[in-house]
Amino acid sequence: MLKRVRSQSAHSVLCCPIGVTLFPTPFPRAHFDQALELQSIYHELYCAMTEDEHWIQTTLQEILHVNSLAAALWEIHRKVKRVDGYIQNISCGIFRSDYMLQGDGTSKLAIDPADGPISTPQLKQVEFNTFSCAGASHAQKTVDMHRHFTRTGAYASLTNGGSPVSLAALPENNNIQSLGACLAEAHALYGQAKSKVAAKTAVLFVVQPQNFNIADERPVEYALWNRDSPVPAYRVEWGDDLLAHTSLSKTKELLFHPPWLQLQAPIEISVVYLRAGYEADEYNDAGKSARVRLETSRAIKCPTLLAQILTFKKVQQALAEPGSVERFLSPEKAAKIRKTFVPMYPLDESQAGVRARKWAADPDVAEHFVLKPSLEGGCHNVYGANIPDFLASVAPSAWCAYILMERIRSPAVYNVLMSPQGIGSGQVVSELGVIGTCIWKKRTMEGSEFLSNTVAGWSFKTKLAGVDEMSVVKGYGCFDTPLLY
Amino acid sequence: MLKRVRSQSAHSVLCCPIGVTLFPTPFPRAHFDQALELQSIYHELYCAMTEDEHWIQTTLQEILHVNSLAAALWEIHRKVKRVDGYIQNISCGIFRSDYMLQGDGTSKLAIDPADGPISTPQLKQVEFNTFSCAGASHAQKTVDMHRHFTRTGAYASLTNGGSPVSLAALPENNNIQSLGACLAEAHALYGQAKSKVAAKTAVLFVVQPQNFNIADERPVEYALWNRDSPVPAYRVEWGDDLLAHTSLSKTKELLFHPPWLQLQAPIEISVVYLRAGYEADEYNDAGKSARVRLETSRAIKCPTLLAQILTFKKVQQALAEPGSVERFLSPEKAAKIRKTFVPMYPLDESQAGVRARKWAADPDVAEHFVLKPSLEGGCHNVYGANIPDFLASVAPSAWCAYILMERIRSPAVYNVLMSPQGIGSGQVVSELGVIGTCIWKKRTMEGSEFLSNTVAGWSFKTKLAGVDEMSVVKGYGCFDTPLLY
Repeated sequence: MLKRVRSQSAHSVLCCPIGVTLFPTPFPRAHFDQALELQSIYHELYCAMTEDEHWIQTTLQEILHVNSLAAALWEIHRKVKRVDGYIQNISCGIFRSDYMLQGDGTSKLAIDPADGPISTPQLKQVEFNTFSCAGASHAQKTVDMHRHFTRTGAYASLTNGGSPVSLAALPENNNIQSLGACLAEAHALYGQAKSKVAAKTAVLFVVQPQNFNIADERPVEYALWNRDSPVPAYRVEWGDDLLAHTSLSKTKELLFHPPWLQLQAPIEISVVYLRAGYEADEYNDAGKSARVRLETSRAIKCPTLLAQILTFKKVQQALAEPGSVERFLSPEKAAKIRKTFVPMYPLDESQAGVRARKWAADPDVAEHFVLKPSLEGGCHNVYGANIPDFLASVAPSAWCAYILMERIRSPAVYNVLMSPQGIGSGQVVSELGVIGTCIWKKRTMEGSEFLSNTVAGWSFKTKLAGVDEMSVVKGYGCFDTPLLY
Repeated sequence: MLKRVRSQSAHSVLCCPIGVTLFPTPFPRAHFDQALELQSIYHELYCAMTEDEHWIQTTLQEILHVNSLAAALWEIHRKVKRVDGYIQNISCGIFRSDYMLQGDGTSKLAIDPADGPISTPQLKQVEFNTFSCAGASHAQKTVDMHRHFTRTGAYASLTNGGSPVSLAALPENNNIQSLGACLAEAHALYGQAKSKVAAKTAVLFVVQPQNFNIADERPVEYALWNRDSPVPAYRVEWGDDLLAHTSLSKTKELLFHPPWLQLQAPIEISVVYLRAGYEADEYNDAGKSARVRLETSRAIKCPTLLAQILTFKKVQQALAEPGSVERFLSPEKAAKIRKTFVPMYPLDESQAGVRARKWAADPDVAEHFVLKPSLEGGCHNVYGANIPDFLASVAPSAWCAYILMERIRSPAVYNVLMSPQGIGSGQVVSELGVIGTCIWKKRTMEGSEFLSNTVAGWSFKTKLAGVDEMSVVKGYGCFDTPLLY
């Protein structure tokens, strides 16, 4: 379900079903397993990166003047360090690594019994999300739907390698409980309330007002309350509300005292789970103050500001440069990660950047690339032949905010997509997101150690092959389930 | 959630939240327990009535010419008996007995800590529903919501007998699983497929097309699939679809063969759960043929046609007459049931009817009554001072289709109602529905015996005291949870 935010009143709101595929889409089991296995190594990589402030600063330096979100976050980081520093040495991450298959697999009709499995291509990373990863709940509901259809016999016309579809080919998904478990573990690691005035501890969800996606967000909150040992979880809106309803004790505990709960004593926040603060315009004065308060507090952040900063495409491109991954991981692990990269280029004035600028200006060459700004989500991307005209409209001094990434050409299969925008059928391509959770503790001098590092689940989205964007909200992309073969 | 049926397309539909109370409404625990205890006795009563065709015929005789639904059902009953008779001796019932409190309890503000419990009135039955009982899923979701608010501390301002509200005061509710368990038990009692051509057995939900209330209906279907030993359950629309996708074998097995499942062999229906066929206009030729097919089949019906017929208000009024309940129950049980009756009168030409007609024509006297037609639900009722004018617009020959029932005056308490129509606060009154399930087997000569007879759960609806109708769909009534004291 998605909320129709504009229809909202004090007493009601309209909503409509989120887009889904009618059938699960074939996806090779080996690549699915590979993606799941890689997740803990990706966590190692990004965790190590958060500890290397020098590398982050060098990498982001050139986009700070053209990317206001990066600039705001870096300013907050410097302010926190200048004033009190980071007091909490435990960090929590809910990350999602997105992949597509790359290869020349010929198109096969998945629902035609005569078809065999598609040819096996390679797993390539689209992006790594470190912040406010969405889709976990929708993905779980969608696989439940496809598994239900399988049980009822509705997929009698669908085959998987010549056999009827079995439940074993549709991997179960417990995203909601897994994310709840991660936050509950971080909550337990925080321990008892440190502040003498606090009555108890709780997890705080920091959310955007007017959120159309509460059906994805709130199940995680309810999962905390529904555990055998319930974990209290509350919600506050980013910005002014957060400033009004929280405070910092002298010893930096984050205290929550919303008037609507009529509390005798404030609640001490153990874990802050951020589902807001990823758009530049959220960093007005109130937004900046709110983020400084969270970061200087003793609460465990999910994620920390430095982990958030790693979500910029510029970081992804810098990681693709020779030696970068190897700086953070053992050669063996680095090689596994690097195999999932597609070529990425800066658009700066380096030698590689100058060459990439030429490619981006040539429609025939640009056809093979996608231009990505360092912004959240894929809806600001520019694809293929549209790149030259788009770049021509941007001042060259701002080109360094973008990276040029080789387009991933996935083998297409047949499916039917259903969304509020309509029903479409034809050749489709899918994107697998592996959702992982980790908690790590910084040790002065020795780097950091993981307290937990696991795969939470996955999401799977599918769009018509001829459409560039995977946006589910716009109705191009649909939630889906991999039909493993 | 309620579907906005008019917004439905092939690929999407809008929906909106169902009306709920912001706070649970105080209700005496003794009366709640009493209502639950009565349920198995009410099942005995209605089960015994289904076996007494003579009594049913005598009771309904005079409304057959003025109530087209009753006439259609009776015609089908006679046709089934004339041709093949009823072949299945096991019957299943999902029943709901609705009560309100009657008494002069003075109004108390439930959310004012200074208030003690309201004075204790008496439990009185509003009606007994034998067919397509709705609200089970909504009721379960609503108590989950009120329990969640209790856990979060949102009810800090609410007290219950001077103490904070505890979860123990908000009774848990497993309607969905309980209804699934009832249908699963009936399915198991049906046993293996009898027809040689059938591949397996399954439960069939017979539903109305364009149903706004699927969020209430489908969870029961999914509960069957989600059992540890899943029970297959399918859905077919009343009328033409049912006729097209089912057939009767020579030995009266009901076979289901919908084209969308591309079955090699038909499915033999073990249990038919009817959520359609309760409105007169559903009994066109296709509707009548469909019902005859169901009733003549070997499938266990939930409920049988004779059980459905007992839902007419005329039956309720006839039961209130001296000796009626006692005809079916032991004196002790009859007394318990009778205590829940309010005075009810026919509007026929009997002595009682002539007297009731006089009352109904006098606005001052009519004020104490509600006029009820023998139709499903409460939305056709006429209340108090509106009765004389309404009856004046109806031909006196059709008056016998109505009964005159003393209005139940409940003690009012304060609450806030939120529905798509708006937010309203003030004095409210509630209606408790006890949902029960039973399965019984007819023994020739010896009457019948219960194979199961249990309370499934409850629903609880609340409206502003000044509003006559309890209609949730129109936004007058809201789902609620009893706050037991």
